[in-house]
Amino acid sequence: MRLRRKPNTQEWLREHEGLVVSEPETLRGKWREHYGNDHPIHVELGMGKGKFISELSRMNPFINYIGIDMYDELIRRAGEKALQAHGAEEAGTVPNLRLVRFNIEQIERLFADREVERIYLNFSDPWPKKRHARRRLTHPDFVNKYRKILNERGEIHFKTDSRSLFEFSLNTFADLDLKMRNISLDVHGRGTPPNYIFTEYESKFVEQGLPIYRVEVIVGEEALRELKQQNQTEA
Amino acid sequence: MRLRRKPNTQEWLREHEGLVVSEPETLRGKWREHYGNDHPIHVELGMGKGKFISELSRMNPFINYIGIDMYDELIRRAGEKALQAHGAEEAGTVPNLRLVRFNIEQIERLFADREVERIYLNFSDPWPKKRHARRRLTHPDFVNKYRKILNERGEIHFKTDSRSLFEFSLNTFADLDLKMRNISLDVHGRGTPPNYIFTEYESKFVEQGLPIYRVEVIVGEEALRELKQQNQTEA
Repeated sequence: MRLRRKPNTQEWLREHEGLVVSEPETLRGKWREHYGNDHPIHVELGMGKGKFISELSRMNPFINYIGIDMYDELIRRAGEKALQAHGAEEAGTVPNLRLVRFNIEQIERLFADREVERIYLNFSDPWPKKRHARRRLTHPDFVNKYRKILNERGEIHFKTDSRSLFEFSLNTFADLDLKMRNISLDVHGRGTPPNYIFTEYESKFVEQGLPIYRVEVIVGEEALRELKQQNQTEA
Repeated sequence: MRLRRKPNTQEWLREHEGLVVSEPETLRGKWREHYGNDHPIHVELGMGKGKFISELSRMNPFINYIGIDMYDELIRRAGEKALQAHGAEEAGTVPNLRLVRFNIEQIERLFADREVERIYLNFSDPWPKKRHARRRLTHPDFVNKYRKILNERGEIHFKTDSRSLFEFSLNTFADLDLKMRNISLDVHGRGTPPNYIFTEYESKFVEQGLPIYRVEVIVGEEALRELKQQNQTEA
């Protein structure tokens, strides 16, 4: 993502240390403690400019969110957006959201086993060349890392406009014997679902009439059990 | 499918009773005996005008094929095409192919448990209206019938141009905890696979640049075991 640089980003980040966690590895295994409550932790990997996690965290005060991306500039943009979405410009922080600059390849250094309940992957870089397949955030190497940090109710929610990345991802999940649910090849085709949150990218794609692909992956044993019971009741 | 009626279809069918099985239910559980060999049985449900199964049966002499559709007119067309593909116009029959007019809803009356090794579903009617969902050939009620007649190496190979039917089908397979493999959202996108057989429909769609969706579903325990070993070797 190419961004115009805003001035004084480093200063802005330091001034918002309640929102932007500067040494997040020190919180590994202690995020619950850090938040001071027992709410589940939901993480967005590659939050970009942060529209999705800003709105989501405003809608769900009893879930703790962590937005992750690689660049200070994105952290700042997301921070400004979050403060605005929560009407918290003056406070300079938000109770249920933290932003973290981190390389997702090392996600296991950020979270202990079973510390996270949900992972969002939104419009991740498709890395279309085959030799870059390992960089895709739904490559089995990544997904196996996610499985370790997800808890007994763990889920992965993935959406993308990239047909090739979605195809690759479905095959990853199928090959790993992971349970998929609500597979959609055109999320907005029969009307956008209620309470649906768009990302920045997504609004543009949908305006152009392009389909959005989406899937939920159920990882946690308890979530799987519940799903099974649900299906039996419906049948 | 709307077809111009050829004259004397009934007569044609009677004259080709080696190829067209007129009382197929009597062969339930006895197809192997009927063919007089131990080759696996592959079935196409909804073969239409029969291009796919004609070519496939010509390419694989050691597999026994059965093409099924609902209308005499289609059976005749498929029969003519098969005889032509096999260069068997004079013989009037083909060793490894039979054609059957039958309602797929009653497929369990055509095959005994574990009698079939593979089911092909090609460009099945998408039945887009929700109230017609039960008519889709990938509805769970159908798929559960397929599971009964498939053997320990059983697979379902499904392709379609219909995004909505493919979405529905992926969810059916996922909900039923069936193992999917080689999910493709654009079969011909990076070049048609080798030895690939087009259906009549498919060629038209591909010429128009429309994507073809495809998935293989692994049902049989032995096929599942082999797949697992394969994945472990690759990893």
